[in-house]
Amino acid sequence: MPQRQRYLFVCVNRRPDGTPKGSCAQRSAVEIHAALKDGLKDRGLAKTEVRACTSSCLDVCWAGPVIAVEPDGYFYGRVTLEDVPELLESLANGTRVERLVLPSNDFDEKTAAPPLPAPKSKPAEGQEP
Amino acid sequence: MPQRQRYLFVCVNRRPDGTPKGSCAQRSAVEIHAALKDGLKDRGLAKTEVRACTSSCLDVCWAGPVIAVEPDGYFYGRVTLEDVPELLESLANGTRVERLVLPSNDFDEKTAAPPLPAPKSKPAEGQEP
Repeated sequence: MPQRQRYLFVCVNRRPDGTPKGSCAQRSAVEIHAALKDGLKDRGLAKTEVRACTSSCLDVCWAGPVIAVEPDGYFYGRVTLEDVPELLESLANGTRVERLVLPSNDFDEKTAAPPLPAPKSKPAEGQEP
Repeated sequence: MPQRQRYLFVCVNRRPDGTPKGSCAQRSAVEIHAALKDGLKDRGLAKTEVRACTSSCLDVCWAGPVIAVEPDGYFYGRVTLEDVPELLESLANGTRVERLVLPSNDFDEKTAAPPLPAPKSKPAEGQEP
């Protein structure tokens, strides 16, 4: 396989529940990575154009889930599973989804825009929601 | 913290022992990542200049351990723990260690240069070497 034109590094770091700044995995980053990987494969892009990888903490937890898009050098933030089709479309077209690109103020927790709402706790198995 | 000037994605994928193409973790990638992270911190580079992250498989297993250097867009390959001081020095200087940069033929297993020697098996705990 050739070097891909683009690599996505999806942070899948997980912190204990209740940590104030949260973590990407708590906000569905593992599922987002899987959906990107499957979608790239389905579109025939995975082996040549774009590879979706997971990464350890990218130190932008408050804006998670975050994805480093390389070698372009920008980060997507506050990504949800619902954003995946639009991300795949933009990757196929070589464009980017501007509304998800993190501006420089988001790299500092003190100046960042608000995080995504905390995920709802899942009811324990066998328990009613 | 600002967005770093540079991110290192050290593949730490591990395959079962005996897999022909090997894997980065079998060739000390976890230790290489830790040494890079510590070295960047010691030099005061970690919070502003360079962040060392781990990643899932970068699909260049035969040339592992591999490190994607972003947003520069090149990969280091066949990295050993002994290379870490030179890598840190180059990161501090904004240069690169040319002898470790993977050429395009290394991205295809069929045309790649030989892999690093297979790691020696470690004796089980309590067992003599």
